[in-house]
Amino acid sequence: VPFRVRRLALLGCGLMGGSLSLALKRAGVVEQVVAMARSPQTLHTALARGVINEGYHSIAQAVTGADVVVLALPVAATEAALREALPHVADGAILTDVGSTKRDVVSAARVALGASIGRFVPAHPIAGKEQSGVEHACADLFDGRRTILTPLAENAAGDVQRIQALWEAAGSSVSRMTPAGHDRAFAAVSHLPHLAAFAYINGLVNQADGASLMTKGGPGFRDFTRIAAGDPAIWRDILLANADEVIDQLDHLNAALNQFRQTLQAGDADALHRLISQASAHRRPWTLQHEVWDESTS
Amino acid sequence: VPFRVRRLALLGCGLMGGSLSLALKRAGVVEQVVAMARSPQTLHTALARGVINEGYHSIAQAVTGADVVVLALPVAATEAALREALPHVADGAILTDVGSTKRDVVSAARVALGASIGRFVPAHPIAGKEQSGVEHACADLFDGRRTILTPLAENAAGDVQRIQALWEAAGSSVSRMTPAGHDRAFAAVSHLPHLAAFAYINGLVNQADGASLMTKGGPGFRDFTRIAAGDPAIWRDILLANADEVIDQLDHLNAALNQFRQTLQAGDADALHRLISQASAHRRPWTLQHEVWDESTS
Repeated sequence: VPFRVRRLALLGCGLMGGSLSLALKRAGVVEQVVAMARSPQTLHTALARGVINEGYHSIAQAVTGADVVVLALPVAATEAALREALPHVADGAILTDVGSTKRDVVSAARVALGASIGRFVPAHPIAGKEQSGVEHACADLFDGRRTILTPLAENAAGDVQRIQALWEAAGSSVSRMTPAGHDRAFAAVSHLPHLAAFAYINGLVNQADGASLMTKGGPGFRDFTRIAAGDPAIWRDILLANADEVIDQLDHLNAALNQFRQTLQAGDADALHRLISQASAHRRPWTLQHEVWDESTS
Repeated sequence: VPFRVRRLALLGCGLMGGSLSLALKRAGVVEQVVAMARSPQTLHTALARGVINEGYHSIAQAVTGADVVVLALPVAATEAALREALPHVADGAILTDVGSTKRDVVSAARVALGASIGRFVPAHPIAGKEQSGVEHACADLFDGRRTILTPLAENAAGDVQRIQALWEAAGSSVSRMTPAGHDRAFAAVSHLPHLAAFAYINGLVNQADGASLMTKGGPGFRDFTRIAAGDPAIWRDILLANADEVIDQLDHLNAALNQFRQTLQAGDADALHRLISQASAHRRPWTLQHEVWDESTS
């Protein structure tokens, strides 16, 4: 029996929250979705597109009567939003989030929720697109994607199971990791690639003829830089929240870049072939993994 | 009236040469395609797939009677192949290539061809895929792509026009650049992204848990690293042939990465937002350019 939600409250109503609402409505597992957003335009768009049934500017009003509250704001807003929500959340309601970093979100949640931390089930759906905002929300954003839960020792097993059922109803598979394991892995496979794509574009446009150079890019350029179009506020927060792991991964990249630089400068064809072969041999067999894993116990 | 080729000779019969043959056959502008390849298996596959009409192990035999000779070997083989071909090339035949670097190809062609350099029209079709080899050749590889010609002062205008017509018949638009302008631009928008994608994968798999980290990658990882699956021999040659421009571009990337590193370490949210905004603002409006330009005169 899938978990059914009577009233889902979104705190923040952008691409992620809006898409979750549309996906759950599509699945028929939610009766009513309400949202808190600061911007009247956002609520207007969300109502007009049928993303939400009611919109509020106040967290207190939005969470009142909800059985699931989903934090879908930039991660830096976690503590303040949960602090404001807590007094108005019904007994038995579950709190969860969609943040791309987990150690900082869990720390903020512990500060904001105190003894109620067990009600917060941290989650990170691995999905997105370059366009942000509720106007780009779509019901299929999570189809075939993965959502990572990083359950806490304080969570009730049934609550974790319910949030898992929610994300499965939204179209994604669900795996579990520890918050620290999550942050290390996603620093490596998501945050660093974003940082590197941003830096690559900046290195290009910092050159006098950078704009002209960019027009020469082909399909390889297009794909390599797609993630450089990401939302600045969202990625600022993610990179800062996970700065230690991102810097650690950046140092691995820098070491590998330096190997290439020295090899090129020396004109060492054999060493260059070995370096490229290593990368190519690891990347060729790679495919998006759809199997579910559980690394949440360490 | 499109340029018609009676007998096209491919020196090398891999993804690029094979796809050119299929594209020209599709367009009906070539009567017969022959190829020189060292490997019997390659010629067998090319014949079996209808990519070529005749296969040879000798350059002399392949180019005899051809009106267009296309060098489609790794760029490091240019000088030796042209030297071997020259005595057997018919009067009036045009020589061209598909190399991803142009200054080194032109230098090698000058050495090999001497006073006949005017017969060589350098070309670079901006197309490809991760799989190499004639077994992956396809007629639509160049559709909607761009081919860059870097004509030489010694070329007859009519020969350049014929090679342009050939690539247009194969499905691509054709622009012109100088060899030096080409190498600088493609170091920036193609060679460096490949190097960075190779280095990123190496930095990942050099870590003890690198294989496990890689399984966590999502769609962003997939697209950012797609080009890291490139053929090692081809990319070794390209990076070596264009090493000075690639190193120059790598230094721009390193400077931009270092800005990110310092900003992250300082926890400077405003500066980080500015860095990401710069990249995002330049990448968002970017699209594959289909307009034709001419930068071949400087």
